[in-house]
Amino acid sequence: MTDDKTLDLILRKARSHGDFADKPVPEELLRAAHELMKWGPTSANSQPMRILYLRSKEAREKLRPALSATNLDKTMKAPLVALVAYDTRFWENLPRMFHNPDAINWFKDKGAHTEINAFRNGTLQGGYYLLALRAVGLDCGAMSGFDLGKADAAFFPDGRLKSNFLVNIGYGTGKGIVPRNPRLSFEETCRSL
Amino acid sequence: MTDDKTLDLILRKARSHGDFADKPVPEELLRAAHELMKWGPTSANSQPMRILYLRSKEAREKLRPALSATNLDKTMKAPLVALVAYDTRFWENLPRMFHNPDAINWFKDKGAHTEINAFRNGTLQGGYYLLALRAVGLDCGAMSGFDLGKADAAFFPDGRLKSNFLVNIGYGTGKGIVPRNPRLSFEETCRSL
Repeated sequence: MTDDKTLDLILRKARSHGDFADKPVPEELLRAAHELMKWGPTSANSQPMRILYLRSKEAREKLRPALSATNLDKTMKAPLVALVAYDTRFWENLPRMFHNPDAINWFKDKGAHTEINAFRNGTLQGGYYLLALRAVGLDCGAMSGFDLGKADAAFFPDGRLKSNFLVNIGYGTGKGIVPRNPRLSFEETCRSL
Repeated sequence: MTDDKTLDLILRKARSHGDFADKPVPEELLRAAHELMKWGPTSANSQPMRILYLRSKEAREKLRPALSATNLDKTMKAPLVALVAYDTRFWENLPRMFHNPDAINWFKDKGAHTEINAFRNGTLQGGYYLLALRAVGLDCGAMSGFDLGKADAAFFPDGRLKSNFLVNIGYGTGKGIVPRNPRLSFEETCRSL
C-alpha cells in the first residue's frame, strides 16, 4: 500500500544534517512542503504553527546571540534557517477554519490552556513540516538548542508569536554525520492496560 | 522521487476519524507503526514519547472521567485508544541513545527546561506517530479535549510520565466526517526576513 522509497526518504533512512552544499533553497520547494504539511491534523483545525524564514544576512545576525555554541557555526552557514513558532492567537482563524462556530470559545482568552494548545499543535505541525521538507527533496537539521527568550525578543517583540525550534535547510553534504544512534524499542515506548 | 499514493495516505487525503468498524487493531500494525515513527528526529535523540494503549474495559473506564463531552462516546467505543504521553526523565536513556556522553547533563535535573523539551520532542514524535499509523493502514482520530490532570492522576500517579493527547485507532467507517475544512495558505503561515 505504501512505497518503501518514500518512507525511507522521510523517516527510515533520513538523517539530520548540519553541513549543506552552497546552493540556495528554491522557494517553490518550501511552498510544496507547505502544501503537504498543511493537511496534518490539529485540534479543531487550529494550525497554530508559523514559520519565519531567515534568509538575509541581517536576519541571521539577529539570531546569532540566541544560538548555543554547538549550533552557532552551522546555523550561521546554512543556506536557509526556519524559525518555527506558534501563534498564541490562532483562535482568531477558527471561525474561518472549523465547521463548529463555537470552537473559537474553546480557546479565546483561555490563558495557559490556549498557550499549551498552541505549543502542542504547533509542534505536531512542526513534525509534519520536517517530514514534508524531506518529502520534497530537501535535507534539514532541527535544533532546540537556542535561547527561546532571546529569539522571541529579536523576532516577535509583540509577544503574539512564540519561538519553538529552529531548522537548518538545504542540500546536506553528509559531512560530520555520525553513525546512526539507536532507538528505543516498542516495549520501552509502549505499554498496554 | 516520492510516491503520491503514500503522501495521499498519510497527509493529503487522510481524515481524522471518530467512528470505527468493530474490528480489533492487530498488535503487529502497532509494532510496524513504531518501527517507522522511531526514526523521526528528536533533540539529542531523546525520544521522550511514551504510549499507553488502553485496551481493556477497565482501562477505558479509568479514562472516562477525564474525557470531554464531545469526545466521550467515540472514545469509549473506539477499538483502541492510545494515551500519548512523555517521559520527564527521558534523559536517563541518553548515555545509551546519544553519541555525546555529555548530553545527559543538558537535561538532568534542569526542571522546566527539561519538561519543555520532553513536551516538545514528545509531541514531534506524536506527529510522526499519527502519520506512521496511517502509513501502516490504520485510521486514527487524535484529540486534546480531555482533562490532562485527571488522566495523569489515573494513569501516571508517580508523576514521571505526563499525558499529552489521545488517539482513537481502528478502521474508520467514514461516518460523521464533515467536508474537509480549509487550510491556512503559505502566506498566512510563513514570512521571510
